[in-house]
Amino acid sequence: MAQKKVFLGEEFLPKQWYNLNADFPSPMPPPLNPGTGEPPDPGFVEHMGNIFPMNLVEQEMTPERWIDIPEEVLGVYKIWRPTPLYRADGLEKLLDAPVKIYFKNEGVSPPGSHKPNTAVAQAYYNKAFGIERITTETGAGQWGSALAFACQLFDIECMVYMVKVSFMQKPYRRLMMMTWGSNCVPSPTDTTEAGRKVLAADPDSPGSLGIAISEAVEMALARDDTRYSLGSVLNHVLLHQTVIGQEAKLQFDALGEYPDVVIGCAGGGSNFAGLAFPFVADKIAGKEVQIIAAEPLSCPTMTKGPYAYDFGDNNQMTPLLPMHTLGHDFVPAPIHAGGLRYHGMAPMVSHGVNIGLIEPRAYDQIATFEAGVNFARCEGFISAPETNHAIAAVIDAANQAKEEGKEKTILFNWSGHGLVDLAAYDDYISNKLTRYELPEEEIDRALRALEGLPKLG
Amino acid sequence: MAQKKVFLGEEFLPKQWYNLNADFPSPMPPPLNPGTGEPPDPGFVEHMGNIFPMNLVEQEMTPERWIDIPEEVLGVYKIWRPTPLYRADGLEKLLDAPVKIYFKNEGVSPPGSHKPNTAVAQAYYNKAFGIERITTETGAGQWGSALAFACQLFDIECMVYMVKVSFMQKPYRRLMMMTWGSNCVPSPTDTTEAGRKVLAADPDSPGSLGIAISEAVEMALARDDTRYSLGSVLNHVLLHQTVIGQEAKLQFDALGEYPDVVIGCAGGGSNFAGLAFPFVADKIAGKEVQIIAAEPLSCPTMTKGPYAYDFGDNNQMTPLLPMHTLGHDFVPAPIHAGGLRYHGMAPMVSHGVNIGLIEPRAYDQIATFEAGVNFARCEGFISAPETNHAIAAVIDAANQAKEEGKEKTILFNWSGHGLVDLAAYDDYISNKLTRYELPEEEIDRALRALEGLPKLG
Repeated sequence: MAQKKVFLGEEFLPKQWYNLNADFPSPMPPPLNPGTGEPPDPGFVEHMGNIFPMNLVEQEMTPERWIDIPEEVLGVYKIWRPTPLYRADGLEKLLDAPVKIYFKNEGVSPPGSHKPNTAVAQAYYNKAFGIERITTETGAGQWGSALAFACQLFDIECMVYMVKVSFMQKPYRRLMMMTWGSNCVPSPTDTTEAGRKVLAADPDSPGSLGIAISEAVEMALARDDTRYSLGSVLNHVLLHQTVIGQEAKLQFDALGEYPDVVIGCAGGGSNFAGLAFPFVADKIAGKEVQIIAAEPLSCPTMTKGPYAYDFGDNNQMTPLLPMHTLGHDFVPAPIHAGGLRYHGMAPMVSHGVNIGLIEPRAYDQIATFEAGVNFARCEGFISAPETNHAIAAVIDAANQAKEEGKEKTILFNWSGHGLVDLAAYDDYISNKLTRYELPEEEIDRALRALEGLPKLG
Repeated sequence: MAQKKVFLGEEFLPKQWYNLNADFPSPMPPPLNPGTGEPPDPGFVEHMGNIFPMNLVEQEMTPERWIDIPEEVLGVYKIWRPTPLYRADGLEKLLDAPVKIYFKNEGVSPPGSHKPNTAVAQAYYNKAFGIERITTETGAGQWGSALAFACQLFDIECMVYMVKVSFMQKPYRRLMMMTWGSNCVPSPTDTTEAGRKVLAADPDSPGSLGIAISEAVEMALARDDTRYSLGSVLNHVLLHQTVIGQEAKLQFDALGEYPDVVIGCAGGGSNFAGLAFPFVADKIAGKEVQIIAAEPLSCPTMTKGPYAYDFGDNNQMTPLLPMHTLGHDFVPAPIHAGGLRYHGMAPMVSHGVNIGLIEPRAYDQIATFEAGVNFARCEGFISAPETNHAIAAVIDAANQAKEEGKEKTILFNWSGHGLVDLAAYDDYISNKLTRYELPEEEIDRALRALEGLPKLG
């Protein structure tokens, strides 16, 4: 019988994170201080140190290729890492294409996704810096639950501002956070200036990610023992995720194989980067490998957004980041059920796209849920809606290999399970989802938010 | 750094199921035909063959010690098996007792519990027997979702009668079944005689497990291509689960250790038996090992119920089974949130208790959720409410070792995760659960259902 999965013993857990910034053939443009339009001066770095702990601010800017993973972080990683590499032989049979398909199962972590790879690291660095409380925002709750899990293990207080409408409609992630001892509150609250302002104008405000971020950052700035935490986009977040790709390479070594195509879904970019960047390094070194980032047609940052300087958040509090973006005011249509709703793309991923190392593809939500249901029915595992974008891209790549008559080995990141996201499957199965592609005129309208900002290059 | 978990390669997947019936020092009493009060005659066996496929009826009665696991079943087991053995060092630290604690993580299966170990086997045997459709009932949905998963992989139609009140209140398991292509309907339905009878008397009936069983069995008997499936209690179900304990023994061999105490929670008895029976075999052979089955104080079948002949279901359709029982009419109080609601206990487990191989313990629901929240906060994983009974027993055993000043190694079955059962955690954390022990007078009342039935021994 064929081998279904490759386990790695704990002794093979990567001991360092990989920083692609050390290997880009051309350097990534620097972030800019929005006040000056110049790269960060020491005063600006100090300001960032009030939002994030300074050890993470330093990691954000490091040019080092390898960063040692602290022993305490490795100790927690061992709860679920190394994660198994699976052969998707059921999907291969269904597709009947000349491909081998493998996936990295990041759903085995206690919160069920790749997010704890960085949540645990961030909780550790905050603790090491003497921080006693972390604030963050969460939409559907995947990030908030991962941070709650991590903070509990490092005995740090965790305060999650959850968009009120999600807080009401999606109780399971909130209950996970409670079980892990976090304080999860519906945003807007009356405990912050930002929240009170919104409530004064509309006491029944359903909240938004932007409001929740404002509340979380305000609380982080209000107390010396408190910092803010972000679950994607930033350099340090992406490098924490590279344990995924490093393990995958060891597992391919054990199989005596190497992938022709590496695929991940991308919203902010962290799970994609985590799997792909160690392979991008090989590609830079001359290896032939295709790297594909899959995004939704309803939030097509890489396929439709320009590469430009933009704020990381719609409150214009972050540095200006060089990224593929639809403009910091952009919010995906509410009918989009598949996650991956961020208006931009991680600067490191955007740079990789811009210099041709990474190929973006965009998929309609119907295609992604169709892919996810097919996967569940032949592989058994029910994927997170985000992950279904990667599966849609895998099916695409397999069909292309069939057309070309070429044998290919495909690897993708199964970034998480969908057991607490099943309402979206219900909508798909009962035909309540519609095909949707973001219209060009809406893109034009959203991009006006970039007017007046410094230009790239 | 200490090893956190022990993986086994797929080559160590057990190739046979273990049947404790071959090793009991005194034989288990036979089931009885309720019509004759005698052990099953050929006519009765033929009747059972209309409910279950004959290959499973034969397995139910087999005296063989080892039963080969078909290749096709092994192929599906590989999706998640062998499951990792974990060291619960976080819990050890919290308890500060002279114990090592290990657990078998059965939550890594796609439906998130141990249930697919038998669901996959049953789907295979039905398919092999030419059956095209399986019916079953489900309460909260753990069993229904496991069977839906298994039937999809063997391309068998699956029809799940889900108690209507659960169907309404617990949509996630139902949505898992839909995603795996099963037909999950709220019971009572108007498609069966049994359902129509209930609806005629009460069109708004919330349903019950008893009604759902009646509907499922009626549909199985109505068509030649259809059989019924049960997720616990029966001998063949228990032996399918023994892959758990066999793997655990290999993992302890790899560690060079052997447990002093083996613990599982027990409702119908299948996850407990799956882990424990291979160790019970060692105990029969002279090894010193304590085997503990943990049940709820609100459904104390082993600790308060007599060992007697009783029906397996409250519709009195099954053979009379020798088991610890509270009477086939017994239904746990609705305030009991922890699962494990079956009125009896698997005959093989009951026999083990009766001859002193297995020690039962009963726990209050508050103690079990307290145990579960502590576990989630120091080990990361959120347990199914059922599993929390095992954790409560582990804490008990650790405290006892501390009192006795004895070093002990404890192994328990982490039978599943609780990510779709979080409403019960919400009730506990917000102090909505109360302590509850089944009053003696209610036990007396329930046991009247045994009057007039044949007596044991």
